[in-house]
Amino acid sequence: MSGRLGFLGPSGSYTEQAALNHDSMARLLPFSSVRGVVEAVRSGDVDEGVVPIENSLEGAVTATVDLLIHASGPMIRHEQVLEIEHCLLGRPETRRDRIEEIYSHPQALAQCRAFLAEEFPEARPIASLSTSAAVEQMQSASSAAAAIANERCAALYGAEILERGVQDDPNNQTRFVVLASTDHPPTGLDKTSICFDFAADAPGILHTALGELAERGINLTKVESRPTRTNLGRYIFLVDLEGHRDDDVVRDALAGVQSQVSMFRVLGSYPVWASSAV
Amino acid sequence: MSGRLGFLGPSGSYTEQAALNHDSMARLLPFSSVRGVVEAVRSGDVDEGVVPIENSLEGAVTATVDLLIHASGPMIRHEQVLEIEHCLLGRPETRRDRIEEIYSHPQALAQCRAFLAEEFPEARPIASLSTSAAVEQMQSASSAAAAIANERCAALYGAEILERGVQDDPNNQTRFVVLASTDHPPTGLDKTSICFDFAADAPGILHTALGELAERGINLTKVESRPTRTNLGRYIFLVDLEGHRDDDVVRDALAGVQSQVSMFRVLGSYPVWASSAV
Repeated sequence: MSGRLGFLGPSGSYTEQAALNHDSMARLLPFSSVRGVVEAVRSGDVDEGVVPIENSLEGAVTATVDLLIHASGPMIRHEQVLEIEHCLLGRPETRRDRIEEIYSHPQALAQCRAFLAEEFPEARPIASLSTSAAVEQMQSASSAAAAIANERCAALYGAEILERGVQDDPNNQTRFVVLASTDHPPTGLDKTSICFDFAADAPGILHTALGELAERGINLTKVESRPTRTNLGRYIFLVDLEGHRDDDVVRDALAGVQSQVSMFRVLGSYPVWASSAV
Repeated sequence: MSGRLGFLGPSGSYTEQAALNHDSMARLLPFSSVRGVVEAVRSGDVDEGVVPIENSLEGAVTATVDLLIHASGPMIRHEQVLEIEHCLLGRPETRRDRIEEIYSHPQALAQCRAFLAEEFPEARPIASLSTSAAVEQMQSASSAAAAIANERCAALYGAEILERGVQDDPNNQTRFVVLASTDHPPTGLDKTSICFDFAADAPGILHTALGELAERGINLTKVESRPTRTNLGRYIFLVDLEGHRDDDVVRDALAGVQSQVSMFRVLGSYPVWASSAV
């Protein structure tokens, strides 16, 4: 649609890459927090907003999940799954065997721990606020330094890619959602995200609610419980299911779930991401 | 029991505080990774090991959850819930109105974002690899600096507590588990953690498995799905339930669940944490 597309910044983040994949013609606007993106979609300052929601190694992006649960307004209009490939970046003149410092966000450093121990046992890991900030710090470091960040950072900051795919676990994917004021019309191959909780802690209440889906043959693609913000022992459930909320069978099932629970919200129906499209 | 107690370090971490709460007489041994703690329990190098498993704001500690799922051996023998209270620490001579730099782990900085914007709009946030490292960096900084870390760090590093409870969300709790070679005998007020997955993606299969618990009146205290390490779309389920695996009704229910699923493991039965004990 090529309007204004907000994303969780800074420039060079994996979310920016997802935003570019989603709509390379849009005007991209970075925000410094997930809340900033959600508010901008709600206020209409952007037409759509891209935020990460789940990583295969790190689990749910709780800032996103909690805002979707608690903030009414923006709905999920698309999903996108992106392979995360960390790269080792250096300055053009850097000799790999002289590297003394390696900058990155602590999470990225942790995801490359075995690689760094093997290849750079003497180098000192230094924490950065983001992978983009790591590249900036590397560029201005007084000693021979490298950074761990993505390919786009290399292009943005004129850094050299010394090695690709330096994460220890090759299976590192992040799922992003594109938020908008409305969700997506049915396409025939859709998913729907809902959340709900229970006023009471009765045994079997989740089982009963899921029964509304099971008895109609609706497949779940994800179930997650998030602690309510007031108590570690009470939970809100997030369920992704196959089908669109406008499909008759899904509409009936959701009405059934809603009748069993306390809070109930549809976060959106949207096309299933086709990984071959990346 | 006062033997050797491993914990996810470094010294000054919230996990060390949980380890001290658990057994202040034990010989405390820090490990640099969750895997290190789990391996030390498995090999017998420590008698017990303490690792974080869940935070009320950040969600599951996936490193711990994934190791419990995939690594056989150590079982959950205790749980502990700790209130997380971030403190602003400085050097004894630091004047609060002169602070130019604030060090911490990016997650702690993010949890104090509103406080920092309100109280220190001009100060520069600087990332550290851990909250303990932040205090060390603050101590040796050339400009007036502060760090965000816990109370124990202040004692360990001789830092001054400038303000307590500086996190934006007062409801910040972490659940820890104590791992050992065996889980805990029944006490009458216990929980059991299990995990399982399904070979096929048939609709209703989770509903059927949970039915084994529901029809026996067993309350779930948590349900979580974790992506399998090979595919974001396939999940392993983690369920915490009330009761001990040696209770007759729980034993029957677990046998019922096991008959419905592909992989099945009991992660341990252990006393319910009584929050009043903190």
